[in-house]
Amino acid sequence: MNIDKINFNEKFSKFNDYWSPRIIAELNDYQFKVVKIKDEFVWHSHRNTDEAFIVLDGEMWIKFIDKEIHLSKGEMLVVPKGIEHKPHAIQECQVLIVEPKGVVNTGDNNGELTKTNEEWI
Amino acid sequence: MNIDKINFNEKFSKFNDYWSPRIIAELNDYQFKVVKIKDEFVWHSHRNTDEAFIVLDGEMWIKFIDKEIHLSKGEMLVVPKGIEHKPHAIQECQVLIVEPKGVVNTGDNNGELTKTNEEWI
Repeated sequence: MNIDKINFNEKFSKFNDYWSPRIIAELNDYQFKVVKIKDEFVWHSHRNTDEAFIVLDGEMWIKFIDKEIHLSKGEMLVVPKGIEHKPHAIQECQVLIVEPKGVVNTGDNNGELTKTNEEWI
Repeated sequence: MNIDKINFNEKFSKFNDYWSPRIIAELNDYQFKVVKIKDEFVWHSHRNTDEAFIVLDGEMWIKFIDKEIHLSKGEMLVVPKGIEHKPHAIQECQVLIVEPKGVVNTGDNNGELTKTNEEWI
């Protein structure tokens, strides 16, 4: 049984590209992913699952159809399933995502930012 | 649809007792709970689920049968299901727990530290 801790800063030091989540841990059939974000993502929703964003460093915004929410380090938000949202950040922001295995980052809106490979780091 | 952010410090400011997790968010059938810990918890395991510990402030240790792991702010660990473990902390440590709904904090080892009520904060 391989049980070991995960250090977020150590994981973030291993990559620099934006909007490309890396898997760092699994919890039953859920995954924890770290992602660096900057600039605008695409509008999308996840039909079958909620999605949790936890800001580990920096600040980001999530646009919804009717409002926009600002998230800073030490804050989290759960986007309910089926809800259109569009994350963005002005400066680099480091985020922890929690969601079921197999979720595609762009949900129902495939495009150039879509990441289908599941990359562990 | 009530979508709003959660600020961890604001949640931790609302209670002071140790080893008493408060629910702050749900993600499908999973929950995020904040808990303040200090001193020794009890040996226990969760037969049916993994359990994630994310240290938000301070430091803690998790004892396993064959080793002990130290966790500081910015680190996480997933305890696999069925694995005996015993969390402890010397000074107050603030932790985010992720696990399925309905998990009892002391797992298979009911006692005075057992919390069966699901308290939102």
